[in-house]
Amino acid sequence: MPSSPPLHQTVAILVIGNEVLSGRTREANAYLAAQKMFERGCKLSEIAIVPDIKSDIINSLNRLRHHYDAVITSGGIGPTHDDITMDAIAESFGIPLLEHQATMDKLLERFGKDVNPGRRRMARLPENAEPIICESSFMPGAHIGNVYVLAGVPEIFASQLETFLDAFGGTPYIRHEIDVNIPESLFAKDLQDIQTQFSDVEIGSYPKLCGKNACGKICLSAQDEARLYQAKEVVNQMLSGMSSA
Amino acid sequence: MPSSPPLHQTVAILVIGNEVLSGRTREANAYLAAQKMFERGCKLSEIAIVPDIKSDIINSLNRLRHHYDAVITSGGIGPTHDDITMDAIAESFGIPLLEHQATMDKLLERFGKDVNPGRRRMARLPENAEPIICESSFMPGAHIGNVYVLAGVPEIFASQLETFLDAFGGTPYIRHEIDVNIPESLFAKDLQDIQTQFSDVEIGSYPKLCGKNACGKICLSAQDEARLYQAKEVVNQMLSGMSSA
Repeated sequence: MPSSPPLHQTVAILVIGNEVLSGRTREANAYLAAQKMFERGCKLSEIAIVPDIKSDIINSLNRLRHHYDAVITSGGIGPTHDDITMDAIAESFGIPLLEHQATMDKLLERFGKDVNPGRRRMARLPENAEPIICESSFMPGAHIGNVYVLAGVPEIFASQLETFLDAFGGTPYIRHEIDVNIPESLFAKDLQDIQTQFSDVEIGSYPKLCGKNACGKICLSAQDEARLYQAKEVVNQMLSGMSSA
Repeated sequence: MPSSPPLHQTVAILVIGNEVLSGRTREANAYLAAQKMFERGCKLSEIAIVPDIKSDIINSLNRLRHHYDAVITSGGIGPTHDDITMDAIAESFGIPLLEHQATMDKLLERFGKDVNPGRRRMARLPENAEPIICESSFMPGAHIGNVYVLAGVPEIFASQLETFLDAFGGTPYIRHEIDVNIPESLFAKDLQDIQTQFSDVEIGSYPKLCGKNACGKICLSAQDEARLYQAKEVVNQMLSGMSSA
């Protein structure tokens, strides 16, 4: 029996779309993928958002795919002139983009001879890529090397993502949060000491503006639940010492 | 009279924060800045989101600041151990991080001798950086070279951003959208021809999932309003020709 490939431990997300860079659309797909990766215990190390320009896509993709275990891309795989992601992926890998036969068969079955050039365009995959097929769309994404090429429409992105999540991660991360109403500057030193003591727990402090009063959250995350609870206990002790001081 | 420096025509945004990469927080600051840059006519060319790791911040900052007219950073300038952006900026420019005297004076006036190490930490700026001072916070951001270093708390980010927006852009972009209920694949070729005809108008097509029917928007943006209206008219003619066909 062949052994399974190792799980991806680190990942980057490459979002392709002028609509995000022009402020038209608030990015949603990287946000979803970030949550899924956290739950699975895969480190999302970078998100890059680039325009619908082939050289920009290729440059970012090459940088990211050589640096991280995997890259997930979002957007630019539709039929219109601004959909150039598959072309960029193929060029990045130095391979041709070919009509995917099984997808063409489905299109012929559904539309008969009425498969227009736009639909044919969406049936192209980089040579030897695996199609990523989901329930929300019969136009495929593509998996090639360590790159997963997904649609930008959020429902389709989410549906495609679910199909290969089990290739990512290991021990899930857990997150706990503590409400804080003490100015950050008063506990910064103590919190740093706790972070040093618990190097396997990631501790962040996220203040908000709440009128004249300080408020915010201290956020702890870790893969080892026992260590997370220990660190949380020490943070709570620090804060209660300050409140009663 | 000294002449004003030229306006920044291209910009990248560098978001620093584990809370975004872990899916805890949905990114909001780059989204706001994207809208502001569009309105001002400055091209937002890339958004990068990196963790609270100094070498990652420095690598991304150096890549972006040499490639675009300006870089706006968001996050990591508070008093806690995970706030390392100012250190990274100073190291990227090869200059020291120094207590900013005017900020220290304000802190001494407000807190007397009670200026704790956390607040002193936030008063540090890269040598010769200009402080970015806004109404929402008296801890400054920093402007050094072509880099603008802003807070991650959304209200403070927004307030700091307003103080230097007039250094960006030129002719504002305008955007119009057209509702479409025809499958993209049917008009892809014609839309491409229109895009070729109007190279100064950016045309995007953004489908949605709407049950069994096609729906979405064609989005046109340009700096020349007359050209935008001309292109919109041609797109509308194309669509009405298809609806009546």
